[in-house]
Amino acid sequence: MSQSLYIIKIGGNVIDNPEACSAFLNDFAKINAPKILVHGGGKIATQIAASLQIETQMVEGRRITDKPMLDVVTMVYGGLVNKNLVVQLQAAGCNAIGLTGADGGIIRSVKRPVKTIDYGFVGDIEEVNGTQINALLTSRLIPVIAPLTYSSEGLLLNTNADNMASGTAVAMSQFFKTKLIYCFEKKGVLSDPDDDNAVISSLTPPTYADYKSTGVINKGMIPKLDSSFAALEAGVSTVTICHAADLLQAVEGLAGTIITL
Amino acid sequence: MSQSLYIIKIGGNVIDNPEACSAFLNDFAKINAPKILVHGGGKIATQIAASLQIETQMVEGRRITDKPMLDVVTMVYGGLVNKNLVVQLQAAGCNAIGLTGADGGIIRSVKRPVKTIDYGFVGDIEEVNGTQINALLTSRLIPVIAPLTYSSEGLLLNTNADNMASGTAVAMSQFFKTKLIYCFEKKGVLSDPDDDNAVISSLTPPTYADYKSTGVINKGMIPKLDSSFAALEAGVSTVTICHAADLLQAVEGLAGTIITL
Repeated sequence: MSQSLYIIKIGGNVIDNPEACSAFLNDFAKINAPKILVHGGGKIATQIAASLQIETQMVEGRRITDKPMLDVVTMVYGGLVNKNLVVQLQAAGCNAIGLTGADGGIIRSVKRPVKTIDYGFVGDIEEVNGTQINALLTSRLIPVIAPLTYSSEGLLLNTNADNMASGTAVAMSQFFKTKLIYCFEKKGVLSDPDDDNAVISSLTPPTYADYKSTGVINKGMIPKLDSSFAALEAGVSTVTICHAADLLQAVEGLAGTIITL
Repeated sequence: MSQSLYIIKIGGNVIDNPEACSAFLNDFAKINAPKILVHGGGKIATQIAASLQIETQMVEGRRITDKPMLDVVTMVYGGLVNKNLVVQLQAAGCNAIGLTGADGGIIRSVKRPVKTIDYGFVGDIEEVNGTQINALLTSRLIPVIAPLTYSSEGLLLNTNADNMASGTAVAMSQFFKTKLIYCFEKKGVLSDPDDDNAVISSLTPPTYADYKSTGVINKGMIPKLDSSFAALEAGVSTVTICHAADLLQAVEGLAGTIITL
Protein backbone atom coordinates (compact mmCIF):
# COMPACT_ATOMS: atom_id res chain seq x y z
CA MET A 1 0.00 0.00 0.00
CA SER A 2 3.04 2.28 0.02
CA GLN A 3 3.10 2.79 -3.77
CA SER A 4 1.59 6.01 -5.07
CA LEU A 5 -0.85 6.15 -7.98
CA TYR A 6 -1.58 9.49 -9.65
CA ILE A 7 -5.05 10.08 -11.10
CA ILE A 8 -4.86 13.24 -13.15
CA LYS A 9 -7.89 15.05 -14.56
CA ILE A 10 -7.35 17.46 -17.44
CA GLY A 11 -10.11 19.82 -18.53
CA GLY A 12 -11.43 20.75 -21.93
CA ASN A 13 -9.64 24.10 -22.00
CA VAL A 14 -6.26 22.35 -22.27
CA ILE A 15 -7.62 19.83 -24.80
CA ASP A 16 -8.72 22.79 -26.94
CA ASN A 17 -5.21 24.33 -26.99
CA PRO A 18 -2.77 22.12 -28.97
CA GLU A 19 0.41 23.73 -27.60
CA ALA A 20 -0.73 23.62 -23.96
CA CYS A 21 -2.00 20.07 -24.45
CA SER A 22 1.26 18.88 -25.97
CA ALA A 23 3.29 20.43 -23.11
CA PHE A 24 0.94 18.86 -20.57
CA LEU A 25 1.23 15.40 -22.16
CA ASN A 26 5.01 15.60 -22.17
CA ASP A 27 4.91 16.41 -18.46
CA PHE A 28 2.40 13.62 -17.81
CA ALA A 29 4.69 11.16 -19.62
CA LYS A 30 7.53 12.12 -17.26
CA ILE A 31 5.72 11.11 -14.06
CA ASN A 32 7.70 8.10 -12.90
CA ALA A 33 4.90 6.19 -11.14
CA PRO A 34 1.66 4.39 -12.01
CA LYS A 35 -0.75 6.97 -13.37
CA ILE A 36 -4.16 7.43 -15.00
CA LEU A 37 -5.31 10.34 -17.14
CA VAL A 38 -9.00 11.34 -17.16
CA HIS A 39 -9.92 13.93 -19.76
CA GLY A 40 -12.82 16.26 -20.39
CA GLY A 41 -14.36 16.98 -23.73
CA GLY A 42 -13.51 20.44 -24.92
CA LYS A 43 -15.38 22.67 -27.30
CA ILE A 44 -14.83 20.52 -30.36
CA ALA A 45 -17.96 18.43 -29.70
CA THR A 46 -20.06 21.58 -29.88
CA GLN A 47 -18.29 22.62 -33.10
CA ILE A 48 -18.73 19.21 -34.74
CA ALA A 49 -22.38 19.10 -33.63
CA ALA A 50 -22.94 22.52 -35.21
CA SER A 51 -21.30 21.36 -38.46
CA LEU A 52 -23.63 18.34 -38.44
CA GLN A 53 -26.63 20.67 -37.88
CA ILE A 54 -27.19 19.14 -34.43
CA GLU A 55 -28.35 21.75 -31.97
CA THR A 56 -26.54 21.96 -28.63
CA GLN A 57 -29.13 22.33 -25.88
CA MET A 58 -27.93 23.67 -22.55
CA VAL A 59 -30.09 23.83 -19.41
CA GLU A 60 -28.63 25.64 -16.40
CA GLY A 61 -25.17 25.43 -17.96
CA ARG A 62 -25.37 21.69 -18.57
CA ARG A 63 -25.45 19.93 -21.91
CA ILE A 64 -28.55 17.92 -22.77
CA THR A 65 -27.44 14.70 -24.45
CA ASP A 66 -30.11 13.49 -26.86
CA LYS A 67 -29.32 10.56 -29.19
CA PRO A 68 -27.69 12.64 -31.99
CA MET A 69 -25.58 14.47 -29.38
CA LEU A 70 -24.64 11.14 -27.75
CA ASP A 71 -23.30 10.00 -31.12
CA VAL A 72 -21.31 13.23 -31.41
CA VAL A 73 -19.72 12.94 -27.95
CA THR A 74 -19.02 9.24 -28.55
CA MET A 75 -17.19 10.20 -31.76
CA VAL A 76 -15.41 13.21 -30.34
CA TYR A 77 -14.61 12.24 -26.73
CA GLY A 78 -14.21 8.48 -27.28
CA GLY A 79 -12.61 8.75 -30.72
CA LEU A 80 -11.03 12.01 -31.83
CA VAL A 81 -9.90 13.44 -28.48
CA ASN A 82 -9.06 10.16 -26.74
CA LYS A 83 -7.08 8.62 -29.59
CA ASN A 84 -5.13 11.80 -30.28
CA LEU A 85 -4.11 11.93 -26.60
CA VAL A 86 -3.10 8.25 -26.76
CA VAL A 87 -0.98 8.59 -29.88
CA GLN A 88 0.80 11.68 -28.52
CA LEU A 89 1.55 9.83 -25.28
CA GLN A 90 2.82 6.80 -27.22
CA ALA A 91 5.19 9.12 -29.12
CA ALA A 92 6.38 10.46 -25.73
CA GLY A 93 7.24 6.93 -24.61
CA CYS A 94 4.16 6.43 -22.42
CA ASN A 95 2.25 3.18 -23.05
CA ALA A 96 -1.20 4.79 -23.05
CA ILE A 97 -4.43 2.85 -23.58
CA GLY A 98 -7.56 4.87 -24.36
CA LEU A 99 -10.73 3.76 -22.61
CA THR A 100 -14.30 4.77 -21.98
CA GLY A 101 -16.09 3.39 -18.94
CA ALA A 102 -17.53 0.69 -21.21
CA ASP A 103 -14.12 -0.71 -22.14
CA GLY A 104 -13.31 -3.59 -19.85
CA GLY A 105 -16.45 -2.58 -17.95
CA ILE A 106 -14.32 -0.24 -15.84
CA ILE A 107 -16.93 2.41 -15.00
CA ARG A 108 -20.62 1.52 -14.97
CA SER A 109 -23.30 4.12 -14.44
CA VAL A 110 -27.04 4.51 -14.47
CA LYS A 111 -28.90 6.81 -16.86
CA ARG A 112 -29.88 9.85 -14.85
CA PRO A 113 -33.55 9.62 -13.86
CA VAL A 114 -35.80 12.35 -15.24
CA LYS A 115 -36.99 14.73 -12.52
CA THR A 116 -37.65 18.28 -13.63
CA ILE A 117 -35.06 18.12 -16.42
CA ASP A 118 -34.41 15.26 -18.86
CA TYR A 119 -30.65 15.34 -19.34
CA GLY A 120 -30.92 12.51 -21.87
CA PHE A 121 -28.06 10.03 -22.19
CA VAL A 122 -26.15 11.19 -19.11
CA GLY A 123 -24.73 8.76 -16.59
CA ASP A 124 -24.36 8.91 -12.82
CA ILE A 125 -21.57 6.57 -11.72
CA GLU A 126 -22.58 3.41 -9.88
CA GLU A 127 -19.44 1.28 -9.82
CA VAL A 128 -15.77 1.60 -10.72
CA ASN A 129 -14.08 -1.77 -11.33
CA GLY A 130 -10.78 -1.12 -9.56
CA THR A 131 -9.66 -4.73 -9.98
CA GLN A 132 -9.88 -4.46 -13.77
CA ILE A 133 -8.09 -1.10 -13.81
CA ASN A 134 -5.40 -2.55 -11.54
CA ALA A 135 -4.91 -5.45 -13.98
CA LEU A 136 -4.22 -2.90 -16.74
CA LEU A 137 -1.72 -1.03 -14.55
CA THR A 138 -0.05 -4.35 -13.70
CA SER A 139 0.38 -4.89 -17.47
CA ARG A 140 2.27 -1.53 -17.47
CA LEU A 141 -0.52 0.22 -19.35
CA ILE A 142 -1.44 3.86 -18.67
CA PRO A 143 -5.23 4.29 -18.87
CA VAL A 144 -6.48 7.43 -20.64
CA ILE A 145 -10.16 7.70 -19.79
CA ALA A 146 -12.76 9.59 -21.85
CA PRO A 147 -15.87 11.11 -20.21
CA LEU A 148 -18.25 8.33 -21.25
CA THR A 149 -19.59 5.43 -19.20
CA TYR A 150 -22.06 2.62 -19.88
CA SER A 151 -25.11 1.10 -18.29
CA SER A 152 -25.73 -2.61 -17.89
CA GLU A 153 -28.58 -2.31 -20.44
CA GLY A 154 -25.98 -1.50 -23.10
CA LEU A 155 -26.21 2.29 -23.27
CA LEU A 156 -23.25 4.62 -23.66
CA LEU A 157 -23.70 7.61 -21.35
CA ASN A 158 -22.12 11.06 -21.33
CA THR A 159 -20.52 11.47 -17.89
CA ASN A 160 -18.86 14.22 -15.87
CA ALA A 161 -15.07 13.81 -16.06
CA ASP A 162 -14.48 15.22 -12.54
CA ASN A 163 -16.78 12.56 -11.12
CA MET A 164 -15.06 9.84 -13.18
CA ALA A 165 -11.68 10.97 -11.82
CA SER A 166 -12.77 11.04 -8.18
CA GLY A 167 -14.71 7.76 -8.49
CA THR A 168 -11.64 6.11 -10.03
CA ALA A 169 -9.40 7.54 -7.31
CA VAL A 170 -11.66 6.15 -4.58
CA ALA A 171 -11.80 2.70 -6.20
CA MET A 172 -8.02 2.55 -6.63
CA SER A 173 -7.41 3.44 -2.97
CA GLN A 174 -7.76 -0.24 -2.12
CA PHE A 175 -4.55 -0.92 -4.10
CA PHE A 176 -2.50 2.29 -3.94
CA LYS A 177 -1.78 5.45 -1.99
CA THR A 178 -3.95 7.40 -4.45
CA LYS A 179 -3.27 11.04 -5.30
CA LEU A 180 -5.94 12.87 -7.29
CA ILE A 181 -4.85 15.98 -9.21
CA TYR A 182 -7.34 18.27 -10.94
CA CYS A 183 -5.57 20.36 -13.58
CA PHE A 184 -7.36 23.45 -14.82
CA GLU A 185 -6.73 27.01 -16.02
CA LYS A 186 -5.99 28.59 -12.60
CA LYS A 187 -3.07 28.00 -10.24
CA GLY A 188 -5.33 26.56 -7.55
CA VAL A 189 -8.24 27.58 -5.36
CA LEU A 190 -8.04 31.37 -5.12
CA SER A 191 -8.78 33.51 -2.06
CA ASP A 192 -9.42 36.44 -4.44
CA PRO A 193 -11.05 35.67 -7.79
CA ASP A 194 -9.40 38.76 -9.32
CA ASP A 195 -5.87 37.76 -8.31
CA ASP A 196 -4.62 34.67 -10.12
CA ASN A 197 -1.69 34.43 -7.70
CA ALA A 198 -3.81 34.39 -4.52
CA VAL A 199 -3.60 30.61 -4.27
CA ILE A 200 -4.76 28.95 -1.08
CA SER A 201 -1.90 26.49 -0.57
CA SER A 202 -3.73 23.99 1.61
CA LEU A 203 -7.26 23.19 2.66
CA THR A 204 -8.51 20.96 5.47
CA PRO A 205 -12.11 20.56 6.66
CA PRO A 206 -11.84 23.33 9.29
CA THR A 207 -10.05 25.85 7.03
CA TYR A 208 -12.49 25.02 4.21
CA ALA A 209 -15.42 25.65 6.56
CA ASP A 210 -13.92 29.01 7.50
CA TYR A 211 -13.37 30.07 3.89
CA LYS A 212 -16.88 28.97 2.94
CA SER A 213 -18.54 30.81 5.82
CA THR A 214 -16.72 34.05 4.97
CA GLY A 215 -17.51 33.69 1.25
CA VAL A 216 -13.82 33.79 0.29
CA ILE A 217 -13.98 30.77 -2.01
CA ASN A 218 -15.63 31.24 -5.40
CA LYS A 219 -19.00 29.47 -5.45
CA GLY A 220 -18.08 27.67 -8.68
CA MET A 221 -15.40 25.75 -6.78
CA ILE A 222 -17.74 24.43 -4.05
CA PRO A 223 -18.94 21.26 -5.89
CA LYS A 224 -15.35 20.28 -6.80
CA LEU A 225 -14.17 20.88 -3.23
CA ASP A 226 -17.10 19.08 -1.62
CA SER A 227 -16.42 16.10 -3.87
CA SER A 228 -12.68 16.32 -3.07
CA PHE A 229 -13.36 16.03 0.65
CA ALA A 230 -15.77 13.16 0.00
CA ALA A 231 -13.03 11.37 -1.98
CA LEU A 232 -10.58 11.87 0.91
CA GLU A 233 -13.16 10.48 3.38
CA ALA A 234 -13.48 7.46 1.06
CA GLY A 235 -9.77 6.67 1.13
CA VAL A 236 -7.99 8.94 -1.36
CA SER A 237 -4.67 10.16 0.05
CA THR A 238 -4.52 13.74 -1.24
CA VAL A 239 -6.37 15.92 -3.73
CA THR A 240 -4.57 18.78 -5.50
CA ILE A 241 -6.13 21.49 -7.66
CA CYS A 242 -3.54 23.20 -9.88
CA HIS A 243 -2.76 24.78 -13.24
CA ALA A 244 -2.14 22.27 -16.04
CA ALA A 245 1.27 23.87 -16.65
CA ASP A 246 2.26 23.11 -13.03
CA LEU A 247 1.58 19.37 -13.15
CA LEU A 248 5.09 18.18 -12.32
CA GLN A 249 5.42 20.62 -9.42
CA ALA A 250 2.01 19.52 -8.13
CA VAL A 251 3.15 15.88 -8.24
CA GLU A 252 6.01 16.95 -5.94
CA GLY A 253 3.53 18.75 -3.67
CA LEU A 254 5.01 22.12 -4.67
CA ALA A 255 2.13 23.75 -6.57
CA GLY A 256 -1.61 24.22 -6.40
CA THR A 257 -4.04 23.86 -3.54
CA ILE A 258 -3.43 20.67 -1.57
CA ILE A 259 -6.54 19.26 0.07
CA THR A 260 -6.27 16.80 2.94
CA LEU A 261 -8.33 15.65 5.91
CA MET B 1 -0.02 -24.20 -27.29
CA SER B 2 -3.12 -26.41 -27.38
CA GLN B 3 -5.54 -23.58 -26.55
CA SER B 4 -7.41 -22.05 -29.48
CA LEU B 5 -7.71 -18.30 -30.02
CA TYR B 6 -10.30 -16.99 -32.50
CA ILE B 7 -9.52 -13.80 -34.42
CA ILE B 8 -12.72 -12.72 -36.13
CA LYS B 9 -12.89 -9.98 -38.75
CA ILE B 10 -16.25 -8.39 -39.42
CA GLY B 11 -16.76 -6.15 -42.43
CA GLY B 12 -18.47 -2.81 -42.82
CA ASN B 13 -21.59 -4.29 -44.43
CA VAL B 14 -22.56 -5.93 -41.12
CA ILE B 15 -21.63 -2.82 -39.12
CA ASP B 16 -24.02 -0.85 -41.36
CA ASN B 17 -26.96 -3.18 -40.61
CA PRO B 18 -28.06 -2.87 -36.95
CA GLU B 19 -30.08 -6.13 -36.87
CA ALA B 20 -27.36 -8.21 -38.54
CA CYS B 21 -24.73 -6.60 -36.34
CA SER B 22 -26.67 -7.28 -33.15
CA ALA B 23 -27.19 -10.95 -34.13
CA PHE B 24 -23.50 -11.26 -34.99
CA LEU B 25 -22.41 -9.77 -31.65
CA ASN B 26 -24.67 -12.13 -29.72
CA ASP B 27 -23.06 -15.04 -31.57
CA PHE B 28 -19.57 -13.65 -30.98
CA ALA B 29 -20.33 -13.34 -27.24
CA LYS B 30 -21.22 -17.05 -27.16
CA ILE B 31 -17.83 -18.29 -28.36
CA ASN B 32 -16.44 -20.02 -25.31
CA ALA B 33 -12.72 -19.42 -25.90
CA PRO B 34 -10.27 -16.51 -26.01
CA LYS B 35 -11.25 -14.29 -28.94
CA ILE B 36 -10.52 -11.00 -30.64
CA LEU B 37 -12.85 -8.98 -32.88
CA VAL B 38 -11.40 -6.82 -35.68
CA HIS B 39 -13.92 -4.57 -37.38
CA GLY B 40 -14.07 -2.58 -40.59
CA GLY B 41 -15.47 0.89 -40.95
CA GLY B 42 -18.74 0.83 -42.81
CA LYS B 43 -20.40 3.56 -44.81
CA ILE B 44 -21.06 5.86 -41.89
CA ALA B 45 -17.63 7.53 -42.20
CA THR B 46 -18.51 8.57 -45.75
CA GLN B 47 -21.91 9.86 -44.59
CA ILE B 48 -20.45 11.83 -41.69
CA ALA B 49 -17.72 13.23 -43.94
CA ALA B 50 -20.39 14.37 -46.41
CA SER B 51 -22.37 16.04 -43.60
CA LEU B 52 -19.18 17.84 -42.54
CA GLN B 53 -18.62 18.96 -46.18
CA ILE B 54 -15.48 16.83 -46.37
CA GLU B 55 -15.08 15.29 -49.79
CA THR B 56 -14.40 11.56 -50.00
CA GLN B 57 -11.66 10.98 -52.58
CA MET B 58 -11.32 7.49 -53.99
CA VAL B 59 -8.48 6.37 -56.27
CA GLU B 60 -8.75 2.90 -57.80
CA GLY B 61 -11.43 2.00 -55.26
CA ARG B 62 -9.36 3.08 -52.27
CA ARG B 63 -10.06 5.94 -49.91
CA ILE B 64 -7.55 8.78 -49.80
CA THR B 65 -7.12 9.81 -46.16
CA ASP B 66 -6.20 13.49 -45.95
CA LYS B 67 -6.11 15.17 -42.50
CA PRO B 68 -9.85 16.08 -42.36
CA MET B 69 -10.73 12.52 -43.44
CA LEU B 70 -8.31 11.08 -40.84
CA ASP B 71 -10.20 13.02 -38.16
CA VAL B 72 -13.48 11.60 -39.49
CA VAL B 73 -12.29 7.97 -39.47
CA THR B 74 -10.73 8.48 -36.02
CA MET B 75 -14.11 9.72 -34.77
CA VAL B 76 -16.21 7.13 -36.56
CA TYR B 77 -14.07 3.97 -36.49
CA GLY B 78 -12.25 4.62 -33.18
CA GLY B 79 -15.22 6.27 -31.45
CA LEU B 80 -18.74 5.73 -32.75
CA VAL B 81 -18.41 2.26 -34.28
CA ASN B 82 -15.90 0.80 -31.83
CA LYS B 83 -17.62 1.99 -28.64
CA ASN B 84 -21.07 0.90 -29.83
CA LEU B 85 -19.70 -2.59 -30.52
CA VAL B 86 -18.08 -2.62 -27.06
CA VAL B 87 -21.20 -1.55 -25.19
CA GLN B 88 -23.36 -4.10 -27.03
CA LEU B 89 -20.86 -6.85 -26.19
CA GLN B 90 -20.77 -5.74 -22.54
CA ALA B 91 -24.57 -6.02 -22.43
CA ALA B 92 -24.20 -9.55 -23.89
CA GLY B 93 -21.89 -10.50 -21.01
CA CYS B 94 -18.65 -10.24 -23.00
CA ASN B 95 -15.91 -8.16 -21.34
CA ALA B 96 -14.96 -6.23 -24.48
CA ILE B 97 -12.24 -3.58 -24.59
CA GLY B 98 -12.15 -1.29 -27.63
CA LEU B 99 -8.74 -0.55 -29.06
CA THR B 100 -7.00 1.04 -31.99
CA GLY B 101 -3.48 -0.05 -32.86
CA ALA B 102 -2.24 2.96 -30.85
CA ASP B 103 -3.80 1.75 -27.59
CA GLY B 104 -1.21 -0.17 -25.63
CA GLY B 105 0.97 0.18 -28.74
CA ILE B 106 -0.52 -3.07 -30.02
CA ILE B 107 -0.23 -2.45 -33.79
CA ARG B 108 2.41 -0.09 -35.12
CA SER B 109 2.59 0.84 -38.76
CA VAL B 110 4.44 3.12 -41.12
CA LYS B 111 2.76 5.84 -43.18
CA ARG B 112 2.52 4.49 -46.72
CA PRO B 113 5.29 6.03 -48.85
CA VAL B 114 4.11 8.15 -51.78
CA LYS B 115 4.83 6.46 -55.11
CA THR B 116 2.38 7.26 -57.91
CA ILE B 117 -0.51 7.84 -55.48
CA ASP B 118 -0.45 9.71 -52.16
CA TYR B 119 -2.89 7.76 -50.00
CA GLY B 120 -2.38 10.24 -47.18
CA PHE B 121 -2.65 9.03 -43.59
CA VAL B 122 -2.74 5.32 -44.37
CA GLY B 123 -0.65 2.80 -42.50
CA ASP B 124 1.13 -0.38 -43.58
CA ILE B 125 1.60 -2.65 -40.58
CA GLU B 126 5.14 -3.06 -39.26
CA GLU B 127 4.72 -4.76 -35.90
CA VAL B 128 1.98 -6.37 -33.84
CA ASN B 129 2.78 -6.54 -30.11
CA GLY B 130 1.49 -10.03 -29.34
CA THR B 131 2.87 -9.92 -25.80
CA GLN B 132 0.74 -6.89 -24.96
CA ILE B 133 -2.37 -8.39 -26.57
CA ASN B 134 -1.73 -11.63 -24.68
CA ALA B 135 -1.56 -9.66 -21.41
CA LEU B 136 -5.04 -8.27 -22.13
CA LEU B 137 -6.40 -11.76 -22.90
CA THR B 138 -4.82 -13.03 -19.66
CA SER B 139 -6.80 -10.29 -17.83
CA ARG B 140 -9.93 -11.89 -19.40
CA LEU B 141 -10.50 -8.95 -21.71
CA ILE B 142 -11.86 -9.37 -25.24
CA PRO B 143 -10.10 -6.92 -27.61
CA VAL B 144 -12.32 -5.18 -30.18
CA ILE B 145 -9.94 -3.60 -32.67
CA ALA B 146 -10.79 -0.63 -34.93
CA PRO B 147 -9.07 -0.18 -38.32
CA LEU B 148 -6.59 2.45 -37.15
CA THR B 149 -2.92 2.06 -36.28
CA TYR B 150 -0.17 4.48 -35.25
CA SER B 151 3.37 5.32 -36.23
CA SER B 152 6.22 5.86 -33.81
CA GLU B 153 6.23 9.57 -34.82
CA GLY B 154 2.82 9.93 -33.21
CA LEU B 155 0.49 9.71 -36.21
CA LEU B 156 -2.81 7.89 -36.28
CA LEU B 157 -3.15 5.99 -39.57
CA ASN B 158 -6.16 4.56 -41.39
CA THR B 159 -5.42 0.85 -41.88
CA ASN B 160 -6.96 -2.08 -43.74
CA ALA B 161 -8.91 -4.22 -41.27
CA ASP B 162 -8.19 -7.50 -43.14
CA ASN B 163 -4.47 -6.84 -42.77
CA MET B 164 -4.88 -5.97 -39.09
CA ALA B 165 -6.73 -9.25 -38.52
CA SER B 166 -4.15 -11.40 -40.32
CA GLY B 167 -1.21 -9.56 -38.74
CA THR B 168 -2.76 -10.04 -35.30
CA ALA B 169 -3.42 -13.72 -36.02
CA VAL B 170 0.22 -14.27 -37.03
CA ALA B 171 1.54 -12.47 -33.92
CA MET B 172 -0.73 -14.46 -31.59
CA SER B 173 0.39 -17.79 -33.09
CA GLN B 174 3.33 -17.76 -30.68
CA PHE B 175 0.86 -18.11 -27.79
CA PHE B 176 -2.20 -19.91 -29.19
CA LYS B 177 -3.47 -22.27 -31.85
CA THR B 178 -4.82 -19.30 -33.79
CA LYS B 179 -7.91 -19.52 -35.98
CA LEU B 180 -8.65 -16.57 -38.26
CA ILE B 181 -12.23 -16.15 -39.46
CA TYR B 182 -13.20 -13.54 -42.06
CA CYS B 183 -16.95 -12.87 -41.89
CA PHE B 184 -18.52 -11.19 -44.89
CA GLU B 185 -21.74 -11.11 -46.94
CA LYS B 186 -21.25 -14.43 -48.83
CA LYS B 187 -21.25 -17.98 -47.49
CA GLY B 188 -17.61 -18.48 -48.45
CA VAL B 189 -15.39 -18.50 -51.53
CA LEU B 190 -17.72 -19.30 -54.43
CA SER B 191 -16.94 -21.47 -57.44
CA ASP B 192 -19.70 -19.63 -59.34
CA PRO B 193 -20.16 -15.92 -58.58
CA ASP B 194 -23.83 -16.15 -59.62
CA ASP B 195 -24.64 -18.99 -57.21
CA ASP B 196 -24.42 -17.96 -53.56
CA ASN B 197 -24.59 -21.60 -52.53
CA ALA B 198 -21.63 -22.75 -54.65
CA VAL B 199 -19.28 -22.60 -51.66
CA ILE B 200 -15.85 -24.18 -52.01
CA SER B 201 -15.67 -26.01 -48.69
CA SER B 202 -11.89 -26.23 -48.44
CA LEU B 203 -8.83 -24.77 -50.08
CA THR B 204 -5.21 -25.90 -49.91
CA PRO B 205 -2.28 -24.53 -51.94
CA PRO B 206 -2.70 -27.11 -54.77
CA THR B 207 -6.51 -26.78 -55.03
CA TYR B 208 -6.18 -22.98 -54.85
CA ALA B 209 -3.62 -23.05 -57.68
CA ASP B 210 -6.02 -25.15 -59.77
CA TYR B 211 -8.98 -22.82 -59.15
CA LYS B 212 -6.84 -19.78 -59.93
CA SER B 213 -5.45 -21.23 -63.16
CA THR B 214 -8.94 -22.10 -64.40
CA GLY B 215 -10.32 -18.68 -63.41
CA VAL B 216 -12.98 -20.24 -61.17
CA ILE B 217 -12.31 -17.97 -58.20
CA ASN B 218 -13.54 -14.39 -58.40
CA LYS B 219 -10.57 -12.04 -58.88
CA GLY B 220 -11.74 -9.86 -55.98
CA MET B 221 -11.02 -12.75 -53.61
CA ILE B 222 -7.40 -13.25 -54.71
CA PRO B 223 -5.76 -10.68 -52.34
CA LYS B 224 -7.68 -12.07 -49.33
CA LEU B 225 -6.76 -15.64 -50.26
CA ASP B 226 -3.10 -14.84 -50.96
CA SER B 227 -2.88 -13.14 -47.57
CA SER B 228 -4.68 -16.09 -45.95
CA PHE B 229 -2.07 -18.53 -47.26
CA ALA B 230 0.70 -16.16 -46.16
CA ALA B 231 -0.81 -16.11 -42.64
CA LEU B 232 -0.91 -19.91 -42.58
CA GLU B 233 2.74 -20.06 -43.68
CA ALA B 234 3.52 -17.68 -40.80
CA GLY B 235 1.98 -19.92 -38.16
CA VAL B 236 -1.80 -19.38 -38.17
CA SER B 237 -3.64 -22.69 -37.73
CA THR B 238 -6.66 -22.23 -40.01
CA VAL B 239 -8.35 -19.44 -41.95
CA THR B 240 -12.10 -19.55 -42.63
CA ILE B 241 -14.08 -17.26 -44.93
CA CYS B 242 -17.80 -17.34 -44.13
CA HIS B 243 -21.07 -15.42 -43.90
CA ALA B 244 -21.39 -13.32 -40.72
CA ALA B 245 -24.63 -15.15 -39.90
CA ASP B 246 -22.75 -18.47 -39.88
CA LEU B 247 -20.11 -17.49 -37.33
CA LEU B 248 -20.90 -20.15 -34.72
CA GLN B 249 -20.99 -22.92 -37.35
CA ALA B 250 -17.70 -21.65 -38.76
CA VAL B 251 -16.15 -21.81 -35.29
CA GLU B 252 -17.14 -25.50 -35.25
CA GLY B 253 -15.62 -25.97 -38.72
CA LEU B 254 -19.08 -26.53 -40.21
CA ALA B 255 -19.50 -23.48 -42.47
CA GLY B 256 -17.61 -21.36 -44.95
CA THR B 257 -14.45 -22.05 -46.89
CA ILE B 258 -11.74 -23.54 -44.69
CA ILE B 259 -8.23 -22.71 -45.84
CA THR B 260 -5.28 -24.80 -44.68
CA LEU B 261 -1.78 -25.68 -45.84
